[in-house]
Amino acid sequence: MLTLDMILDAQKALEGIARKTPLDPAPKLGENVYIKAENLQLTGAFKLRGAYNKIRSLTKEEAARGVIACSAGNHAQGVALSSTKLGVKSIICMPAGAPISKVEATKGYGAEVVLVPGVYDDAAREAERLAKENGYTFAHPFDDPLVIAGQGTIGLEILEQLPDASQVVVPIGGGGLISGIAMAIKTINPSCRVIGVQAAGAASMYTSVQQGERVELSKVSTIADGIAVKKPGELTFELCKKYVDEVVTVSDGEIASAILFLLETQKTVAEGAGATPVAAVMGGHVDTTKGKTVCVVSGGNVDVTTLSRVITKGLSNSGRIVEVSTKVADKPGSLIQLLQVVSSTGANVVRIHHTREDRHSEVGECIVTMVLETVDQGHIHQIETALKTSGYHLEKR
Amino acid sequence: MLTLDMILDAQKALEGIARKTPLDPAPKLGENVYIKAENLQLTGAFKLRGAYNKIRSLTKEEAARGVIACSAGNHAQGVALSSTKLGVKSIICMPAGAPISKVEATKGYGAEVVLVPGVYDDAAREAERLAKENGYTFAHPFDDPLVIAGQGTIGLEILEQLPDASQVVVPIGGGGLISGIAMAIKTINPSCRVIGVQAAGAASMYTSVQQGERVELSKVSTIADGIAVKKPGELTFELCKKYVDEVVTVSDGEIASAILFLLETQKTVAEGAGATPVAAVMGGHVDTTKGKTVCVVSGGNVDVTTLSRVITKGLSNSGRIVEVSTKVADKPGSLIQLLQVVSSTGANVVRIHHTREDRHSEVGECIVTMVLETVDQGHIHQIETALKTSGYHLEKR
Repeated sequence: MLTLDMILDAQKALEGIARKTPLDPAPKLGENVYIKAENLQLTGAFKLRGAYNKIRSLTKEEAARGVIACSAGNHAQGVALSSTKLGVKSIICMPAGAPISKVEATKGYGAEVVLVPGVYDDAAREAERLAKENGYTFAHPFDDPLVIAGQGTIGLEILEQLPDASQVVVPIGGGGLISGIAMAIKTINPSCRVIGVQAAGAASMYTSVQQGERVELSKVSTIADGIAVKKPGELTFELCKKYVDEVVTVSDGEIASAILFLLETQKTVAEGAGATPVAAVMGGHVDTTKGKTVCVVSGGNVDVTTLSRVITKGLSNSGRIVEVSTKVADKPGSLIQLLQVVSSTGANVVRIHHTREDRHSEVGECIVTMVLETVDQGHIHQIETALKTSGYHLEKR
Repeated sequence: MLTLDMILDAQKALEGIARKTPLDPAPKLGENVYIKAENLQLTGAFKLRGAYNKIRSLTKEEAARGVIACSAGNHAQGVALSSTKLGVKSIICMPAGAPISKVEATKGYGAEVVLVPGVYDDAAREAERLAKENGYTFAHPFDDPLVIAGQGTIGLEILEQLPDASQVVVPIGGGGLISGIAMAIKTINPSCRVIGVQAAGAASMYTSVQQGERVELSKVSTIADGIAVKKPGELTFELCKKYVDEVVTVSDGEIASAILFLLETQKTVAEGAGATPVAAVMGGHVDTTKGKTVCVVSGGNVDVTTLSRVITKGLSNSGRIVEVSTKVADKPGSLIQLLQVVSSTGANVVRIHHTREDRHSEVGECIVTMVLETVDQGHIHQIETALKTSGYHLEKR
């Protein structure tokens, strides 16, 4: 089981190993809203804390044999760096389709990476098999008291950095992060609320808490891949029931807008999972009018190509970019006419695609698809009205 | 003229107005390399410091008439926010093509924005005209002792935060930022080196220092739009000659790689100009082996759509993405054959474009253009070799 002493003990062990990350105000998010920037943690995510606390607690014999984990994400890097720092051999199983950047980063921290054909579950089975065969210790990503105690050190830091915090908002995947934080905070200051956030497309803890028992989702789908977990842990489920005040969900659109907000306004990079507390605040799922709210931005390891896509999605959600399709006559000058209407609205053309061959186009007409930079939804409405008034029929894509 | 007292005085005035930005180690950039994060300054850039120091120094009468500036960038936002904080009216002239996001941000800080048809020089002329007509004070972006004194407060902070810094690397556009920083640092600690960085496509100060006189470039071209200045200021040129040890230049490719590095490794957003000191370190233009080096990341206001493009360019420069074009026979199965070769090399297909109509393709063949995710230049070479060995002719695009 988990005790506060275990978390205090982890905090001592992590001194000089994990970074005490900044807790800064985010006034544009709300007058009393703060960000705990675990995306600035070494390895780019909080996972280092739990992984290090687990691996430093191995017996000499266990340490001599090595550790194994299954992860294509932050846990992999946390285990790899912790092991290297402790002089322990680490093996990480990843599904073969894992992004090259994650594979390289994990190798860079000193782990041996085993690429397993298939999906995550296949890689997990292979990790278990290798663990048994070679006597490696399996480092669970969340359902382990020592891992949870490590993550709980974030709760201690928050109470040190902002003693009068009245609520802390934390992402939930398997539940390790929030279990540790909530245990620490509720034990020391029971009046501080702890709110969990899940992606709506992977709401396993949310559903489990609602139904009072651990539920396994048949599939998960979210841009917040770091918290796309089908089933909560046994221990984390019990701790969440006991210590977490409320669990809310956010949509992928809200997550994308939050990532964009953090990039543009806070000049900081959050991954999908890490942005969920900010998404919850921006989406109005959390009341920030009473007291001080801390959003735990748990990680920043977003693939930069994903980041490009998220930027586009976030711009689209906030009405700052729009794709418009219409038909024009297949004759010289018709594109100019269309562009004149667009230009008169003050919209800026980002990209244009003009094609004659399209299954929706008749002979004698062309399809024009334009991506436009806009100010907001009202501006988009104005552009659409201008186009319709000029006789253009708009296609929804 | 500029004195240390003016900078010390500015520092007092800026207390509670400008943020004392963090100075943190950046171990992946070098063992003794640090980042002074002015991208985390209010308004997202250092310009607030100089603008506020200028505007707070206006006489009552001047303040009552208001200030005017010409800028589509950080100076605009610095003047707008400073004026609003001081209860002074501000007018900002921008070229009509300025990005919508910059216009909106400047308005958001309380300025009146005048969009002037034409380019920057037209907007500048209009600002001068309006200043004369209405008695507004013109707030110069760099060539003003009060503005320079404001920027110099960064130098004082660096010496406080890292007293044994042995060299400070600073972006140069017009030269206001480096003039202030260099004056402060050299006066207090003459043994600390100050190195300026310019974009190779806008090396006006670099050229001027080399030639011993102010040179005006006929055109400037760089992704670091914040430092695309054709001619150094009079005062800044004199201060640079006196206090700056060396000026180096970096390419747009190096700047893009630096932005990408900061995003991926430091989880922080830098604009092109802000990333130039990191580009200088990464490109080996600055020797970081002796003592502690501070890179001043001057701003983070990069348009997110530009950021997407920069990410792609940075990935391409570092060999992590490549575009490959080849021809295949226009018959069923030929695309599969090609993809099998690609797949065997471990490259991941990001995007594929397969077209029959292309002015370079013969009847009976199609052009396939693939964007592939790769590990490094060696991996790209390996893919090209595999394709050639299988009989594909590679087109350079």
